Amino acid sequence: MEKIIINQHKKIKLNDPILIEGLPGIGNVGKIAAEYVVEKLKMEKYADIFSEYLPPQVFMDDSGVVRLVSMTLYYKKMPKAKDLLVLVGDFQGTTQEGQYELSYFILELAKKLNVSMIYTLGGYSIGKIPENPRVLGAITNESMLKPLMAGGVVFPKGEPGGGIVGSAGLILGLGKELFDLKGACLMGETSGYFADPKGARVLVKALVNLLKLKIDITDLDERSKQIEQITEKMEQDLQNKPQKDDLGYFG
Amino acid sequence: MEKIIINQHKKIKLNDPILIEGLPGIGNVGKIAAEYVVEKLKMEKYADIFSEYLPPQVFMDDSGVVRLVSMTLYYKKMPKAKDLLVLVGDFQGTTQEGQYELSYFILELAKKLNVSMIYTLGGYSIGKIPENPRVLGAITNESMLKPLMAGGVVFPKGEPGGGIVGSAGLILGLGKELFDLKGACLMGETSGYFADPKGARVLVKALVNLLKLKIDITDLDERSKQIEQITEKMEQDLQNKPQKDDLGYFG
Amino acid sequence: MEKIIINQHKKIKLNDPILIEGLPGIGNVGKIAAEYVVEKLKMEKYADIFSEYLPPQVFMDDSGVVRLVSMTLYYKKMPKAKDLLVLVGDFQGTTQEGQYELSYFILELAKKLNVSMIYTLGGYSIGKIPENPRVLGAITNESMLKPLMAGGVVFPKGEPGGGIVGSAGLILGLGKELFDLKGACLMGETSGYFADPKGARVLVKALVNLLKLKIDITDLDERSKQIEQITEKMEQDLQNKPQKDDLGYFG
Amino acid sequence: MEKIIINQHKKIKLNDPILIEGLPGIGNVGKIAAEYVVEKLKMEKYADIFSEYLPPQVFMDDSGVVRLVSMTLYYKKMPKAKDLLVLVGDFQGTTQEGQYELSYFILELAKKLNVSMIYTLGGYSIGKIPENPRVLGAITNESMLKPLMAGGVVFPKGEPGGGIVGSAGLILGLGKELFDLKGACLMGETSGYFADPKGARVLVKALVNLLKLKIDITDLDERSKQIEQITEKMEQDLQNKPQKDDLGYFG
Repeated sequence: MEKIIINQHKKIKLNDPILIEGLPGIGNVGKIAAEYVVEKLKMEKYADIFSEYLPPQVFMDDSGVVRLVSMTLYYKKMPKAKDLLVLVGDFQGTTQEGQYELSYFILELAKKLNVSMIYTLGGYSIGKIPENPRVLGAITNESMLKPLMAGGVVFPKGEPGGGIVGSAGLILGLGKELFDLKGACLMGETSGYFADPKGARVLVKALVNLLKLKIDITDLDERSKQIEQITEKMEQDLQNKPQKDDLGYFG
Repeated sequence: MEKIIINQHKKIKLNDPILIEGLPGIGNVGKIAAEYVVEKLKMEKYADIFSEYLPPQVFMDDSGVVRLVSMTLYYKKMPKAKDLLVLVGDFQGTTQEGQYELSYFILELAKKLNVSMIYTLGGYSIGKIPENPRVLGAITNESMLKPLMAGGVVFPKGEPGGGIVGSAGLILGLGKELFDLKGACLMGETSGYFADPKGARVLVKALVNLLKLKIDITDLDERSKQIEQITEKMEQDLQNKPQKDDLGYFG
Repeated sequence: MEKIIINQHKKIKLNDPILIEGLPGIGNVGKIAAEYVVEKLKMEKYADIFSEYLPPQVFMDDSGVVRLVSMTLYYKKMPKAKDLLVLVGDFQGTTQEGQYELSYFILELAKKLNVSMIYTLGGYSIGKIPENPRVLGAITNESMLKPLMAGGVVFPKGEPGGGIVGSAGLILGLGKELFDLKGACLMGETSGYFADPKGARVLVKALVNLLKLKIDITDLDERSKQIEQITEKMEQDLQNKPQKDDLGYFG
Repeated sequence: MEKIIINQHKKIKLNDPILIEGLPGIGNVGKIAAEYVVEKLKMEKYADIFSEYLPPQVFMDDSGVVRLVSMTLYYKKMPKAKDLLVLVGDFQGTTQEGQYELSYFILELAKKLNVSMIYTLGGYSIGKIPENPRVLGAITNESMLKPLMAGGVVFPKGEPGGGIVGSAGLILGLGKELFDLKGACLMGETSGYFADPKGARVLVKALVNLLKLKIDITDLDERSKQIEQITEKMEQDLQNKPQKDDLGYFG
């Protein structure tokens, strides 16, 4: 079989579209944010992407109907603005080769659809639950630094150490070197310990700022508060735990 | 070498055949059930499939004659009914790529042989020995829900969590998305701890119901009872074991 | 690069040649035996085989001159008998794909050179040092059973359980199914704990018997005796070890 | 995508060039040495090499601008001497296939650029910090032994045991067997525990000797001294550490 197969649902013509990528990753903040945008903007499906670089697996809905794991590209025509494409998916490519091939495939598709700018979304793990998560940025061209900073994106020197691993970084890197495509990576700070709506919330806010989107983020506010309450409760429980428990092992 | 090689033994013309797939998996219930159908219906070999996606290994018979690991497709012409194809094998594909490529290969073959419906067989591990194992179902099309439920197949919401991994799921998923083929996955409940004829038995019973097959399941009844006796004995032994045995290590 | 590259050193025409394969494996007995045959028969190099299925590694001789890891095929024209080819090498293919591709490559080469019979050599681990190691056999055709048994090869039912993994088995299996080539696998019993000349010695003796070779096995006798003395000494040391040593941990 | 992609920056014609390879490896001494040569000779970029055999990763500069991981080939035209090419990179190929394919690609490029001699740089781990690290050598042709020894390179028999693994060895081995290219591997002794400028320093000195380069190694002297001071301090701290510290966990 072809290693990557696209099932195109629509023939569309887009106006200078912007591509937002949000695949699973650290704290799943990129995926949560991208799916939130798709839902709130009521975006339509453009294509499903199947690949042997994804796990050999199906998911089932409540009627038991299977769905092969995939990536999906959604689109929305935006009146008086650049059109929007959002890529979401069940998994990133599971191998190094898969990472490269899938990112390259997305970039070829983006080029064909005349994409002029790419935002990749990811998480940045800080190893503890951030009170006020920031959005860290990475860019393909220095000219993008000022507009992004104006949109609240932070560029701390030397972070993230080790660079960006996976599709959020690779799509930028391959896009820059081999497709002459501009892009930015937005990374929401997160503990990375669980699927984190708080980290996703700041990503959506950043996209709203940068792209002048009209998206109500109340739902993410709500989910973020729930997570906060759960983690606060867990911390209190830990503090109230009688000390001798810690010595339980020694009787 | 070609990554998948088929050795076809017969030229056959089948009437609207149904394909049953039963490869090794959880509790081996799919494999045991499919091999039981092949044996009881005295099916004939249609083709052997060799592949570098299978382990580099041979098995030997009692005379020391080697046999390369393979998948094998059997067929039977059924008077006044749809013909039958059954796929069994020594292994599933051992890599993600192998899983996709072998499933795709089977589906191409199925399409060529005018297969109209696929049943994939698998196990569903419940982590303990089930007294009365159920058959859980997954389907490619919602229209199949009622006939399957009428045949005793259960569709509990949210199960199996995480979907179906491996060929039993993938053949359905790829068949649906890329070959427009209808199919259902039948999963026999099993502990998953050992090769389980009890889980296989309910799968064969479900196939008998759904396809109006004439298969005597006495042998599987027998093997299921033997397994039951063994596991009951093990449980009793565990209960009767004097407590000090637990301290045996310290003498 | 081509995944497998052959550097042919000679153009030769062989008379109905027999191929002996001895690559590294359990106790390295196949490799030791095959290299012994090459040395004692003063065989000439026919070709080197390089491949990215082998480790990315060079070895060095005493002058520091590097040699890329490889497999090597040696030949010898035998007056009044079938000619001989022996395949030795630094490694087996390191992946499943590599195992299949390299075995297939060898078989294509064997077919081109009109090989009529293949002996693959391997070890059979019995988990302890065998006093009088036997040679176990596996065959592609039942007709070979009697001649091999006449040559001292043993065919115990159900052994080796799990069949034969790796090139010694795969060359037989692929040869039988896809090249219509006859072959036998000879497995020398060995502990499998170290490179074992005793296991290799019985393999060479079996080949001498079966192929009427004139090979002096005195050197292997010598090396086997040395190994025996070393292991006997180790056993004695173990027995003489004062018992309280065993309690050293609690002491 | 192509598995290896080259972005060529210049069209150049070189005079009988020598290729020096210094990729990451043991103690990173090869990489540090090669990058030092590039810096001190103010070499110019000839080409970037991207590949899915490298990790799916980008690095960022202080402005947050991303750079896809790569290998880079630098060149310098040398008046009255053979021209120079130096290959550096962020990573070696991460798989066995990647190792072979990238080395082969480099060799094809070297052949095209009329390279007549290759020096690969690596580290040789001796498991402790060497006081006066030596440079060990490996060669493709025995004729190179004397000139290299005259340049201070050491050829101890039987070292490195196990040969040379990775690109430093593979480029020599493939170059010799498949491209008829001469080469030598220079290995700086190092502990292998950290990026080691001392091991790199002796490599640069060896290159200066062998190729009559004019390179000021003062900076590497400085960095080597710093490392020496740090490690000396660590050793003293270890010796002065009060014994009860060892029981800190229970204290």
